[in-house]
Amino acid sequence: MMRRASFILSGVIIVATFIGASVKTRAYTAEPPLVRIAELEITSGLLAPYKDALKEEITTSIREEPGVLTLYAVSVKGQPSQIRIFETYKDQAAYESHLQTPHFKKYKAATQGMVKSLKLIETEPILLGQK
Amino acid sequence: MMRRASFILSGVIIVATFIGASVKTRAYTAEPPLVRIAELEITSGLLAPYKDALKEEITTSIREEPGVLTLYAVSVKGQPSQIRIFETYKDQAAYESHLQTPHFKKYKAATQGMVKSLKLIETEPILLGQK
Repeated sequence: MMRRASFILSGVIIVATFIGASVKTRAYTAEPPLVRIAELEITSGLLAPYKDALKEEITTSIREEPGVLTLYAVSVKGQPSQIRIFETYKDQAAYESHLQTPHFKKYKAATQGMVKSLKLIETEPILLGQK
Repeated sequence: MMRRASFILSGVIIVATFIGASVKTRAYTAEPPLVRIAELEITSGLLAPYKDALKEEITTSIREEPGVLTLYAVSVKGQPSQIRIFETYKDQAAYESHLQTPHFKKYKAATQGMVKSLKLIETEPILLGQK
């Protein structure tokens, strides 16, 4: 009887996992992820080196930091020096830890003279829907 | 000999897959995904029904449309009526198909009177880094 109940339970968990996977909107029961939007303007003529530094920083952060969930970098169409980065961290601690990493500090130092303006927009997640 | 080569090749593919999975930045060799940022201001007093309609639209789009990759909705901290949605579609066709779905049309009709202003920012992806 116990075995049968456990078997049924396993089935329910598997089905629930499938349903969960097909809808997949980031669920946050404990603490919601920290989402920040960075809006940057890059000095014209320095866009290529800035993008190289940014790409390296993103690749390293995603690979090495478990708490860095997304770093989506785009430029505004027709205004390539206007950059937007959509940043998602597991929680506040993951974000603070990110700021202390050697690769983030390297990126900040390397790009300091390339960034004309930087606006950081703190946000409250409503629903982070993703595949 | 053939069998051995095939065994080694399998190993290489498995290792390559692991490396790929650990870094996972969306690779786009053919066509880059279409990324759009929507900036909305919602009429005060209508925020709760607007959010309900938005959540339903996001959940349905992610579940039913293979080409809708992210619909990340957040509000600006301290300004809850300022909404930002970070939208990623597989390609232009997926975006156009999204606009024709019954759930999107329902959302547009239901929220028309709730949206004070809407700014759509077209973008060029630089690097979409994600876990």
